Amino acid sequence: MKFSPSLANLIDALRALPGVGPKSAQRMTLHLLERDREGALALATALETAVAKIGHCSRCRNFTELEICEICCDPRRDHKLICVLETPADVLAVEQSGSFRGLYFVLMGHLSPIDGIGPREIGLDAFQQRVLDEGISEVILATNPTVEGEATAYYLTDMLLPHGVRVSRIAHGVPLGGELEYVDGSTLAHAFSGRRLLQQEQ
Amino acid sequence: MKFSPSLANLIDALRALPGVGPKSAQRMTLHLLERDREGALALATALETAVAKIGHCSRCRNFTELEICEICCDPRRDHKLICVLETPADVLAVEQSGSFRGLYFVLMGHLSPIDGIGPREIGLDAFQQRVLDEGISEVILATNPTVEGEATAYYLTDMLLPHGVRVSRIAHGVPLGGELEYVDGSTLAHAFSGRRLLQQEQ
Ligand SMILES: [Zn+2]
Ligand SMILES: [Zn+2]
Repeated sequence: MKFSPSLANLIDALRALPGVGPKSAQRMTLHLLERDREGALALATALETAVAKIGHCSRCRNFTELEICEICCDPRRDHKLICVLETPADVLAVEQSGSFRGLYFVLMGHLSPIDGIGPREIGLDAFQQRVLDEGISEVILATNPTVEGEATAYYLTDMLLPHGVRVSRIAHGVPLGGELEYVDGSTLAHAFSGRRLLQQEQ
Repeated sequence: MKFSPSLANLIDALRALPGVGPKSAQRMTLHLLERDREGALALATALETAVAKIGHCSRCRNFTELEICEICCDPRRDHKLICVLETPADVLAVEQSGSFRGLYFVLMGHLSPIDGIGPREIGLDAFQQRVLDEGISEVILATNPTVEGEATAYYLTDMLLPHGVRVSRIAHGVPLGGELEYVDGSTLAHAFSGRRLLQQEQ
């Protein structure tokens, strides 16, 4: 059976959503058309608005509609402490655990030379400058405990330690190979408190 | 952590999709903004186009962008045989099973007096007229084997038999309480071939 073109097109477009295969895309399409056309239009508007308005904070690179995000502007947070993470979802996970009250720096990825993602692509040149200019007391590395996340943490350590910056890595209460975003709050709190200082290699 | 308003709004709007809870809506939002803004805009356009263009076939009530859908216009199909189903997804399931080459009539629901859905709301008055006007040789009832689907089939039987119309019900190879849309093609094929003629009650 051929679907009518705009129906087939919607099924196809829904597959841009992670975890949505052909069968669920079809169910979603029929559901929206049968029972929630208003919801479909609201979703269209929300998508367009979010894409148009949401950019990156000029200090921490997290998602925001502002030039500098609310966390970076918050005077109640410790502005001398920066936690480096891979994604906005990771920021959310750490915030929800309540285990950290400093600022963030969001790499929006990790080092991946094969994909052409080097230090500049994840903002490390500007980050180094900021850490030195602002006399940051400690940089906490909270990249994922995956091969790429570890390599990125290693690179950051190597970049900052020669300048006398205090650098730490969150403890691996986070299961190896896992993704930060899926870890529960108390495990994350444990990982923060158990962080260990990294020493410059001899 | 407060999300920025247009981000929170998109998370919320994604919940219009069936099977999408708060956690997956959040993942979808971050994924689209981080990695697929083009896909997000394409989805917005596809939603708007589908809502604007897709209406119901004036003969079978299935989704179509045309006045009369492609199935209803197809001269290779048996125009004297009509299968009555609840939803467009059911049409799709039957089409994919390849077990039926007549036309369809899609109720877009079933009788549900509690919800104010009577015979008129599911198009039965016009359907009866059509069956009589066009000298339909057989009406196959393929509503779901649920309480409401059975009640709807019973109503249709009662409506058509007194006019001498041949009425059949697909065999219940379809598991009781199940939904037609999730049944595999060969079970559906079996259900069609094993259909039994309904007799007027004595
Ligand atoms: Zn910021
Ligand atoms: Zn039609």
